[in-house]
Amino acid sequence: MEQSFLAYLRGRTRSLPSVAVGIGDDAAVLDFPINGQPTAVANEPGSGVLQQVACTDQIIDGVDFCSESQPLASIGYKSIAINLSDIAAMGATPTAALVTLALPAHNATEIAGEVYEGILEACGQFGVAIAGGDLSTYDGPLSINVTLLGTVTDPWLRSGAKEGDAIFVTGSLGGSLAGRHLRPIPRIELATRLRQIATVNAAIDISDGFSLDLDRMLAASRVGAELDIENIPISEAAQEMSQTSGRTPLEHAWSDGEDFELIFTVGESDAIKLEQLSADELTTAITRVGTVVGRTGLWKRVPGSKLQRVFPQGYVHGETDE
Amino acid sequence: MEQSFLAYLRGRTRSLPSVAVGIGDDAAVLDFPINGQPTAVANEPGSGVLQQVACTDQIIDGVDFCSESQPLASIGYKSIAINLSDIAAMGATPTAALVTLALPAHNATEIAGEVYEGILEACGQFGVAIAGGDLSTYDGPLSINVTLLGTVTDPWLRSGAKEGDAIFVTGSLGGSLAGRHLRPIPRIELATRLRQIATVNAAIDISDGFSLDLDRMLAASRVGAELDIENIPISEAAQEMSQTSGRTPLEHAWSDGEDFELIFTVGESDAIKLEQLSADELTTAITRVGTVVGRTGLWKRVPGSKLQRVFPQGYVHGETDE
Repeated sequence: MEQSFLAYLRGRTRSLPSVAVGIGDDAAVLDFPINGQPTAVANEPGSGVLQQVACTDQIIDGVDFCSESQPLASIGYKSIAINLSDIAAMGATPTAALVTLALPAHNATEIAGEVYEGILEACGQFGVAIAGGDLSTYDGPLSINVTLLGTVTDPWLRSGAKEGDAIFVTGSLGGSLAGRHLRPIPRIELATRLRQIATVNAAIDISDGFSLDLDRMLAASRVGAELDIENIPISEAAQEMSQTSGRTPLEHAWSDGEDFELIFTVGESDAIKLEQLSADELTTAITRVGTVVGRTGLWKRVPGSKLQRVFPQGYVHGETDE
Repeated sequence: MEQSFLAYLRGRTRSLPSVAVGIGDDAAVLDFPINGQPTAVANEPGSGVLQQVACTDQIIDGVDFCSESQPLASIGYKSIAINLSDIAAMGATPTAALVTLALPAHNATEIAGEVYEGILEACGQFGVAIAGGDLSTYDGPLSINVTLLGTVTDPWLRSGAKEGDAIFVTGSLGGSLAGRHLRPIPRIELATRLRQIATVNAAIDISDGFSLDLDRMLAASRVGAELDIENIPISEAAQEMSQTSGRTPLEHAWSDGEDFELIFTVGESDAIKLEQLSADELTTAITRVGTVVGRTGLWKRVPGSKLQRVFPQGYVHGETDE
């Protein structure tokens, strides 16, 4: 449902005041007003003007987590971390969060307290203020909604990938549900570091699966990718999971959701620069996994130098897995 | 639960980065960064610096509205309007909304569409952009969470009321639940107009009841009020409701929630100026209902010029009505 409804919404919001970047990227980008007045023309990405970013994400018990088997503090931590991941995907710096809890009436105060332990931990770790929020009790499952604000100059958009760009991914992929997904490390520090070294043309964070989110970013940029499939960094968790899941480690890395790593593209000269830096220098390991090409879709090189189309897989909201 | 939990939170967030005005007012106030850097010292209210406001409010089926008897478009409208009311209470100008829906799995797309009709109507009416949002389906009641952003110079805080200030209230009070509560008129226009004419020292919007929200504002200012009870503007709906409710029209005006009118205080010279203006000139009627006094609590003058203490009543979240 989500994708088609967002398309409908994008159409319907055309008559409203606009923001520099609206529905459809990892976060919205808003212009700061000048002398108290909204800027007459939205600043284009690349304008070098300081802008605001804002994103929001809710997680619900029974849909996005399971309170019976997962610590509430970790769930609180995750509610902030997944929004920080969106902020990182814009190359932005987080500033403040607004946190809304819908709490089951039974044990509401205790649940709120435990959830907030994790929220406070994540906010402390990444220098985020808690600016406000709302609390309700109701006859329903625990639901946590976080809106995160931040600032950015020249945000990284999904739509900026250019033919010839190198495609990188952070960390290692797959098997997040074995545990990593509760304490994801949003790539805020890497984003800050990258901005000092290179010009990132496009970025997205992996929430629904490497191949699916890569495909979304490329589609927004109206380009495709030639992938070096064998270079995709596979996590240990994906290796372990594969022993019982009936799927290969690569399949896990290709399609598992909730990695919260970044995919980004840079020009060739920046790519060479980045490959010479250690994980320590960059704050985290990054891996080159392919090249942006003009032809849309995902392609892999097979023996004999032919290209074969490969298809994105992952978690599609409101539908079963493809 | 809410008030005590917020007190706990205020304590726990002291170690985090701070915002100019955090948890506890109608909206948070954040400093815009200067040259991409957060300002070293939070701007005090009254600094004349342009700041950002942000607030968030969720409404849930079965708690805050009833989808079986109320049109979904009205509920969508209300989800924006109640946040606009908070923005108005800060004397701020709204800019953009982030909207999150948690939808019952059955008929999710249809419900989302109807709710959005009202959301788009309210946003169109008050010049608000929709910057983003989130959609989930789950096994629970319809829940709408809106975060609203805006801008302000010298925000109106609950804590600014001064001894000797005149206390005003907008519109007429009570009986909102007879229907007005679904299409409240957030006092955005009045707030803009007031800023041109007067210096508002303190303000709050009425969400839980006139006397209760007045008491909250005065408590935040560490002052009290001498009220001219007979001047409190009583709505027609309160008159009608009183015919069957067993409560007087004044009791409805005193304690009914969801009026979404503003209470504000100004110095005496501004008060005289405001009283000379018509409702048309001000965009809406306002009524002087009392005077801020140093002695805390709410007081009314009784025959013989003695003062008698009166007690706030209204909707207290997480508790039964007092």
